[in-house]
Amino acid sequence: MSKTQPARGMRDFLPADIRRREYVIGIIKEVYESYGFEPLETPAVENLETLTGKYGEEGNQLIYKILKRGEKLEQSTSEKDSSDLALRYDLTVPLARVIAQHKNDLPKFFKRYQIQPVWRADRPARGRFREFYQCDVDVIGSSSMIVEAELCAAVGEILLRLGFSDFVIKLNHKEILTGILKAVGIPTEQHINTLVVLDKFDKIGAEAVAKELQQMSISVDSVLKLMKFILSIYKRQKKDLKDRIENIELELEKAYASTSSKHNDEFNFTQHSPEKINDITFERIAGFTSENEEGEKGISELKKILKFIKNQYVYKRIEIDPNLARGLSYYTGTIMEIVLTSSDFSGSLAGGGRYDGLIGMFGKEQIPACGFSLGLERILVVMEERGMFPKELGDSSADVLVTVWNEDSIGESLKLAGELRQQKLRVLVYPEADKLGKQFKYASQINVPFVCVLGESELAENKVTLKNMETGEQEIIERAEAASRVKIHKQNSQSKS
Amino acid sequence: MSKTQPARGMRDFLPADIRRREYVIGIIKEVYESYGFEPLETPAVENLETLTGKYGEEGNQLIYKILKRGEKLEQSTSEKDSSDLALRYDLTVPLARVIAQHKNDLPKFFKRYQIQPVWRADRPARGRFREFYQCDVDVIGSSSMIVEAELCAAVGEILLRLGFSDFVIKLNHKEILTGILKAVGIPTEQHINTLVVLDKFDKIGAEAVAKELQQMSISVDSVLKLMKFILSIYKRQKKDLKDRIENIELELEKAYASTSSKHNDEFNFTQHSPEKINDITFERIAGFTSENEEGEKGISELKKILKFIKNQYVYKRIEIDPNLARGLSYYTGTIMEIVLTSSDFSGSLAGGGRYDGLIGMFGKEQIPACGFSLGLERILVVMEERGMFPKELGDSSADVLVTVWNEDSIGESLKLAGELRQQKLRVLVYPEADKLGKQFKYASQINVPFVCVLGESELAENKVTLKNMETGEQEIIERAEAASRVKIHKQNSQSKS
Repeated sequence: MSKTQPARGMRDFLPADIRRREYVIGIIKEVYESYGFEPLETPAVENLETLTGKYGEEGNQLIYKILKRGEKLEQSTSEKDSSDLALRYDLTVPLARVIAQHKNDLPKFFKRYQIQPVWRADRPARGRFREFYQCDVDVIGSSSMIVEAELCAAVGEILLRLGFSDFVIKLNHKEILTGILKAVGIPTEQHINTLVVLDKFDKIGAEAVAKELQQMSISVDSVLKLMKFILSIYKRQKKDLKDRIENIELELEKAYASTSSKHNDEFNFTQHSPEKINDITFERIAGFTSENEEGEKGISELKKILKFIKNQYVYKRIEIDPNLARGLSYYTGTIMEIVLTSSDFSGSLAGGGRYDGLIGMFGKEQIPACGFSLGLERILVVMEERGMFPKELGDSSADVLVTVWNEDSIGESLKLAGELRQQKLRVLVYPEADKLGKQFKYASQINVPFVCVLGESELAENKVTLKNMETGEQEIIERAEAASRVKIHKQNSQSKS
Repeated sequence: MSKTQPARGMRDFLPADIRRREYVIGIIKEVYESYGFEPLETPAVENLETLTGKYGEEGNQLIYKILKRGEKLEQSTSEKDSSDLALRYDLTVPLARVIAQHKNDLPKFFKRYQIQPVWRADRPARGRFREFYQCDVDVIGSSSMIVEAELCAAVGEILLRLGFSDFVIKLNHKEILTGILKAVGIPTEQHINTLVVLDKFDKIGAEAVAKELQQMSISVDSVLKLMKFILSIYKRQKKDLKDRIENIELELEKAYASTSSKHNDEFNFTQHSPEKINDITFERIAGFTSENEEGEKGISELKKILKFIKNQYVYKRIEIDPNLARGLSYYTGTIMEIVLTSSDFSGSLAGGGRYDGLIGMFGKEQIPACGFSLGLERILVVMEERGMFPKELGDSSADVLVTVWNEDSIGESLKLAGELRQQKLRVLVYPEADKLGKQFKYASQINVPFVCVLGESELAENKVTLKNMETGEQEIIERAEAASRVKIHKQNSQSKS
């Protein structure tokens, strides 16, 4: 490792990177603010006890802990005791802490967005970093499904404005999952662990999930019933995998010597609207859970969201998916995830859900809450690969470069630069007295569209020579005219792109 | 300590705080970009070895170190070995690392700004935090004093646009300090430590500085000569302290039984322009250093900066101050600091200097560099105390609140909100179906200027009732007209403030 590299899994962002990041963040902020969300920021460093016990065993291992200092470190008796601070792991737990602390200073329905980095000591991989930004948006204080409807509308609007046209917002409900697990006979105390395993379905596949569940001493019958239900949903989503999935189903049946007959799935989904498909999914869930209390509640809340959002653009992009689990144990109601349907990208762009119990872990009061977290890094990766950034973002750092003739005229060059800046131009002054040829060459290298020459004769006559670096044309003009010339060109090229 | 508080010395920023911070950061970015500076960001976490040995012994103690994880921690044999990562301590050292790493991807003259938090395990105090933002601006690749001139102009423009009218940019030069220390007979190997002590002059006072220097085995004669020079400059700067300083001078003379006569300082500075005062300061320095090589070089470079910047607004705000030391050992040329002259605030708003040797510590090549660091937290504190923020920043999170009549009409309320957002309004939807009175009350509490009621009769007639929360007036209007009504009001109230 070279001593000039950033730490492993972390990145330096050069100007072109920042321009792309700020373009995306700018749109995210604009849309969130149009929905009345307000900005919040919390410290990078939290008390260790604030974070521990919130992210499950796996998450706990990935928290970066900070070494105690001085006296405090000397007093610590064990390795475990050598840290009392840690780096922020997500933006949800700090939000819950802030709500419990500032409840009286905040509006009853607090709508906040927060765009900050988080740190996880994960194994670095393509697209997985140890420092990465999350863009969270949450509504605190309301149990109504209006919240979910608005969150879906806002996040959908952001993706649309960024240029995504192939996204789907998947919705599920914690109670539907509970209803399903209950229906297949998995005991309540096994539910959390079962959901952690199911969340890995996409990564490790059906066979491995079934195996892990059996290792947890879940009965063969329960596993088989559960897998069959999951696969029947999955098959519909991944039409191209239909044959493979049917094979897996057969093998599972053989392996577990099931007595149940193969599910007859003759319904042709490609013919139907997203709306109709969601209706059928609801029927399936209701049938499978035998309309138990939990399943009923989940279905009823998701139906409300669909009803509220019916008039919105995102309505057609919503897909009810009873397989959607997500690993986080603090979800209590709706579970949400956004995926791209095109095959060039797997993984989700955003995830979220309702967590009505988390804030109560910090304060005395239970306050309902629901939110979405956009994965900035993933959005950027896909936009880069698909060439979705506007052309202007790659542009130069300046509209015009002012040359320097000699040491004595530097003051005049700086003054001219000031005049041009007053006209709202971004202006570089060549930062050395050097040959004019070198100054032109530099302007061309860094892609500055105009050079404004202030030489001996120009100074004497109160004029400047303005060179268009694209066309090579140059003309001597009144000093006061330089700004407007550059601005006209700038407006023209912006309206073209 | 409550478990809902942030970690000691760290802060949560609620929406009103963020609005003020973003207002200031927005102006800083706008001005820097108009000078052709480009954004850069580096990770919060750096390899420990990147930071160690760069900030002196005192700085080293304040670095937050991150605990090694898993296997790595088990392999570590000592306490010192238990960390290989650390939190960013400033923005200059990471910049030097980035330049050494990305030299070939960056323009020859790289002008960058960077606005990010840094962390120091300092004792928290009023206005001193363990997490705080720095706003750095640096020019890499040029040794010309054009760089210093532009940096002063840019930072001066920022302060002016923020509304500061009482700031002074102090300039000194590392070689002038060397020339002075040489002139009073302090040996070269003592220079760095002497400057660290001199930097504390404002905090601990003349007597304590003199005592510390003596404890370093610097001769009484050297200390006395040095203190007299410092005080003669200081007296001029702090006219109200003239009597006290003359007393100190007398006491110092008595204490050290000096043979030199009291300096006759009859020149009345209040009569003269800043320009004339700087000329006299240059004469003093030249006289005191007996025009030694170092003093000459420092004076010549500072005179160039003044010459280059003569046409700019900030020229009159520049004060040559041979007492300005600053603790950082990596400065090699110009040293800069911005202070407020009014007595309500002590301490600097910005500091910086030239560090032509730092980048060479990471790469093979020495690359000249010079920069300014604006203290965002201090700027915010002073602006808050002086009431310098524009009134609109305190405004509400939304322009209009749309009411919800009942569960069945929620979809229509969300639709109306979408229509209003298309007209560039920030729109809240009341997030529950509740009594209309409660919804009005809430709008008033959170200071939203308009409420748009979508009740049973309005829905039937495709109209809305628009209530102006300030005047209490309400009228039934066409649904399509609502946005323009709110917008007219918004424009009027913005143009008033």
